[in-house]
Amino acid sequence: MSNDKLVKNAIGRLVPEIINGEQHVPFKGVNKHRPTGRKAAPPIATCIDYPPDGDKRVASIKEALKKAGLKDGMTISTHHHLRNGDFVANMVFDAAAELGVKNLRWFPSASFPIHANQIKHLESGVIHHIEGSMNGPLGDYCSYGKMKGTAILRSHGGRWQAIQDGEVHIDIAVIAAPTADPFGNANAVRGKAACGLLGFAEADAMYADKVIIVTDNLEPFPVIPWQIHGNYVDYVVEVESIGDPSKIVSGTTVLTKSPDRLKIAEMAAQFILETGIMKDGFSFQAGAGGTSLAFAVFVRDLMKKHGIKARFVRGGSNKYLVEMLEEGLTDYILDGQTFDLEGVRSMRENPNHQNTNPFTSYNFHGKGNFASMVDVVVLGATEVDVNFNANVVTHSDGRLLHGIGGWQNCLFSKTVILPIPLFRDRIPVIVDSVTTVTGPGELIDVIVTERGIAINPRRKDLLDKLSGSRLPIKSIEELKAEAEKVCGGAPQKPKLGDKVVAAIKWVDGTVIDVVRQVLD
Amino acid sequence: MSNDKLVKNAIGRLVPEIINGEQHVPFKGVNKHRPTGRKAAPPIATCIDYPPDGDKRVASIKEALKKAGLKDGMTISTHHHLRNGDFVANMVFDAAAELGVKNLRWFPSASFPIHANQIKHLESGVIHHIEGSMNGPLGDYCSYGKMKGTAILRSHGGRWQAIQDGEVHIDIAVIAAPTADPFGNANAVRGKAACGLLGFAEADAMYADKVIIVTDNLEPFPVIPWQIHGNYVDYVVEVESIGDPSKIVSGTTVLTKSPDRLKIAEMAAQFILETGIMKDGFSFQAGAGGTSLAFAVFVRDLMKKHGIKARFVRGGSNKYLVEMLEEGLTDYILDGQTFDLEGVRSMRENPNHQNTNPFTSYNFHGKGNFASMVDVVVLGATEVDVNFNANVVTHSDGRLLHGIGGWQNCLFSKTVILPIPLFRDRIPVIVDSVTTVTGPGELIDVIVTERGIAINPRRKDLLDKLSGSRLPIKSIEELKAEAEKVCGGAPQKPKLGDKVVAAIKWVDGTVIDVVRQVLD
Repeated sequence: MSNDKLVKNAIGRLVPEIINGEQHVPFKGVNKHRPTGRKAAPPIATCIDYPPDGDKRVASIKEALKKAGLKDGMTISTHHHLRNGDFVANMVFDAAAELGVKNLRWFPSASFPIHANQIKHLESGVIHHIEGSMNGPLGDYCSYGKMKGTAILRSHGGRWQAIQDGEVHIDIAVIAAPTADPFGNANAVRGKAACGLLGFAEADAMYADKVIIVTDNLEPFPVIPWQIHGNYVDYVVEVESIGDPSKIVSGTTVLTKSPDRLKIAEMAAQFILETGIMKDGFSFQAGAGGTSLAFAVFVRDLMKKHGIKARFVRGGSNKYLVEMLEEGLTDYILDGQTFDLEGVRSMRENPNHQNTNPFTSYNFHGKGNFASMVDVVVLGATEVDVNFNANVVTHSDGRLLHGIGGWQNCLFSKTVILPIPLFRDRIPVIVDSVTTVTGPGELIDVIVTERGIAINPRRKDLLDKLSGSRLPIKSIEELKAEAEKVCGGAPQKPKLGDKVVAAIKWVDGTVIDVVRQVLD
Repeated sequence: MSNDKLVKNAIGRLVPEIINGEQHVPFKGVNKHRPTGRKAAPPIATCIDYPPDGDKRVASIKEALKKAGLKDGMTISTHHHLRNGDFVANMVFDAAAELGVKNLRWFPSASFPIHANQIKHLESGVIHHIEGSMNGPLGDYCSYGKMKGTAILRSHGGRWQAIQDGEVHIDIAVIAAPTADPFGNANAVRGKAACGLLGFAEADAMYADKVIIVTDNLEPFPVIPWQIHGNYVDYVVEVESIGDPSKIVSGTTVLTKSPDRLKIAEMAAQFILETGIMKDGFSFQAGAGGTSLAFAVFVRDLMKKHGIKARFVRGGSNKYLVEMLEEGLTDYILDGQTFDLEGVRSMRENPNHQNTNPFTSYNFHGKGNFASMVDVVVLGATEVDVNFNANVVTHSDGRLLHGIGGWQNCLFSKTVILPIPLFRDRIPVIVDSVTTVTGPGELIDVIVTERGIAINPRRKDLLDKLSGSRLPIKSIEELKAEAEKVCGGAPQKPKLGDKVVAAIKWVDGTVIDVVRQVLD
C-alpha cells in the first residue's frame, strides 16, 4: 500500500480506506463517527442438529475444525486469557496446516510470544494475516513487512465492537476453557489452567458461526458458573493440557523496585488525593505493570490513612486489589482479567469479585459502558507528544511490539493519568509527534514523570485544584526539554518505509493511524 | 378468519397461515421444521448517545415511553416474574393510553388476573392484541372473540425463539426490576419485590430496540449480580412500587391434601424408581402445582431411602427443592422462576442455585438446550387424548384460561409424565380428541392417574422395565373407559364458532393448533 492510496484522517495521519480488500472508515475525531445499521446476526440453529443428551464431544481439534467446515480464507478466533501459557491457538493452526487450508485470518483477542509458532504458518500461507494485538515476536515479524496481509489492531472494546457490528465475521471460534462440560458450558475458575475468567471469548461465542470449546478439565453437566453458555457451542474437545499454568498467571505479582518508578507511582496517588478524586465511593483502574501496581499500593495506603472507601476498582486483578476487597476498602472488583493466582482465587470464591467482558466494560457501540464511569485510570505509554497524544503499540524504533488492550477504552474515564518515566534507555518518552497515535491527546489529562507532572491545559479544573500544591506541576514542554537535556536531544526518528504493515483502530471502528514497515 | 382460509397441519388441525397480517408456518411434525436465515439484529447503538456518568434515570414511565419513541402499532414487551403481583405492565399501558397511542401489540412472557386492567385498553383500541400466555381473565376475554386481533400463545422457549428469529420484533421492552442501578444493571434477588430472577426478560433486553428498567429499589452502580446488563438499557425509571410482594411469591408453598392427588404423586415417584430413572446423578423437573410439589416430596423421600443423589433438579423452585439442595440430595438447582420466598432466599444465597433463562433451558433454535438433558419431567394437562396428545391451554368448555409456560419445551425431556386426575368436576380428562393440541402425543410417555398408569406404546422400554411391577399399568383406552363409566359418558364437546381467537405455536415457531371463539 503506497501513500497515494491513503487519506488524511481527523488527526492528520495518512490512513488507508481499503485494508485487506475491505472498506474501513478513517478516524473522524472523538465522538464524531456514528454507526448505522444493525448488529451482526449469526445463523439460526436448531436443536434437531445437536445431540439431545447434550454430549457435543469430538475426538480432536482437527476433527472439530473439519466438522465446523473449515475452508480456505476463513476467520478463526481465539482468546488470550491463557496469555503466554496458551497452547490452544498453536494447536488450532497446527491442525489447520495438517488439514491443508490456506489464507486464514487469525483473529485473537491478543497474541503473546508463545504464539511465535504461527510464524511458520504465516510463512507457509496457512495464515494470511493477523487481526489482533500482538505482544512480542509476531508484532516484530509484522513490523518488518513479512506478513502477507495487513495487521489490524483493536482495543478490547474495539474487538467487541467489530464483531458486534459485523465488521469482522468469525467463521470458527475456538475457546480454550479451563473447565467445561460436554454441552460446552465453561468457566475459568477451576481446572489446572484456571485463568479466572473468559470475558474476551464471550463475543466470539455469541457471534461466531461455529464454536469449539477446548478443555483439559471436563466436568459433568452442568458446569457452574457458566461464563460461556453451552447453548452457543457446537463441539467440545478434550486435550491433555490447554496451557502452561506457570505462564498463564504468575504466582505473585511483582512491584517495581525502581526508585524513579516508585516516585512516579507515589506522585500519581498523591495527585488523585489532592484533586479530590480519591473520596468515598470513588473508583479507579490501574494496569498490571510494576508502576501501576505500586500506584495501587500507594492508593491503598492513602485510603486507609484518610478513611476512604471505594465503590469499585477495576481489574486486571492482582493480590493488591484482592487485599483491598478483603479488607473492605472497596465494595467490588469489576474484573476483566486476572493477573495472578490471588486474582483467580478471589474470582472463584468471592461474589463481590465480579467478572466482566468487553461488552459491559468497553464496547463503544453499546448503550454506554463502564469505562466512562470510572473516576480515574492510570495507564502506560511508549511515547507521548506535546499535544498529549499517546502511543502504546510501537517503540521509538518503529517496531510494533505491544497490543492495545483496554487502553483506548479506558481513555473515556473521568480522569486519565499516564505515569511514565521521562526517558527509557536514554531515549526521551515525550516527543514532538508520536510514532503511532493510539489515543488522541484530548482524552489524556495528566502525565506523571519522576521530574514533574504535566496537566493537559483542557483540564483547567485539575490545575485549579492543585494551586498551592507541593506537587511539581510543569508544562509538558518543560518536561520534554528536561528529558532532552538529560539525553542529549530529541530521539532519532525511526527509519520507516512507505508500506503500511498494520492499521490501528479507534474504539468506534475508524482508523486512527497506521504502522509502517521498519527498514532496519 | 373463516375455515376456508385455514390449512391442515401435520397433526390434522386447521390453522391459518396469515395471523394479524403476518405469515406463519403450519406445524410440520416434531423435529421437521428447519429454520433458515440469521438471527434478529438490534440497531447498533453508540456511547455518544448515553450519559458518560451512566445515569439513565428519567422521571416517569410515561417520559421513558416518549423518549423511547412510542408510536401507534408498536410492540411493547413485559415479563411475568412478578406474577399476579405485577404493577408494571398495567402502569405501562395506562401511560400509553394517556399518551394517546393506539393498536399496540402487548408481548408479555405471560399475563395474570391482575392484568385484567388491560381489558379497558383492548376495548379502547390502545392494545390491538396480546401475544403471550394468558392465565385467567384476559384469556377468558379472548375466548369470547372480543379481542381485535388474534392472540398468539408461545411456550417460554418459543417466545425466545420468536424474538431471536425476528418473528416478533420488540420496539420497547419494559422490565420490572426488584433491584437496579442508574445504569440499568438489574437483578431480582434483593428489594421489596424480590422475585428471584429475571430470566424471562433477558431476550427482551438483548433484542428490543429500546429497553426501559422500572424499579422500586435503586442501588448505586454496580448492582451485582447483574442478570440484566445495563449495557442493553436505555432508560431507568424509579417508582414507588413495582408490585405486591404477597402476590409475587407466596410465603409458603402448599402441597395438595387431596388423597387422590397424593396417590397420583406417589405412584409417579414410585414409577421413576422402578423404571430406574431415579438413580445417582439423575435429574428431574416438576411444576408448581400441588400434585407436582407432592411428587417432589415423594421423590425426595425415595432418594433418601435408597441413598440416591441427583446431579440437578430444575425449578420453578420452592422450599422442597431448596431443602433438597441444602440437604445435599442434589448438586444444583437450575431455576427458571422462584415460586416461594425460600426459592428467592436460596437464589440469593446459594451459588449452586443457578438462575437460567429460556435461552439456556428451552430455546429450540439454539445449539441444544437443557430440556432434552433432563431425565424426567412431570407436567400437568387439562385434557389428554387416546393418542397421548395433550392440552394445557383450554378447558373442556373451550375457554382459554392457561398459558403454555415451559410445558412444550419440557416435552423434550427423556421421559415425560403427566400425573393427572381421571376426571375433574365429573368431567373425564382423557378424551378422544383434545380441544386444543398443545403437545403431540409422540412426546408424552406416561399418564399417571389415581386409577392406573398408561404408558405410551412407543415406550416399550418402560413397559418392559415394569413387567412384574405392582404398579397398576393399564392402556389409555382402559383409563378412558373407567372415567366415562364414573362420569356417565364422554364429556360434552364445547360450543365453538368458526372464528379463530388464538393460535398456539409449537417450539419451532410453527402453528400447532388454534383456539376458536366460545359461543356461550
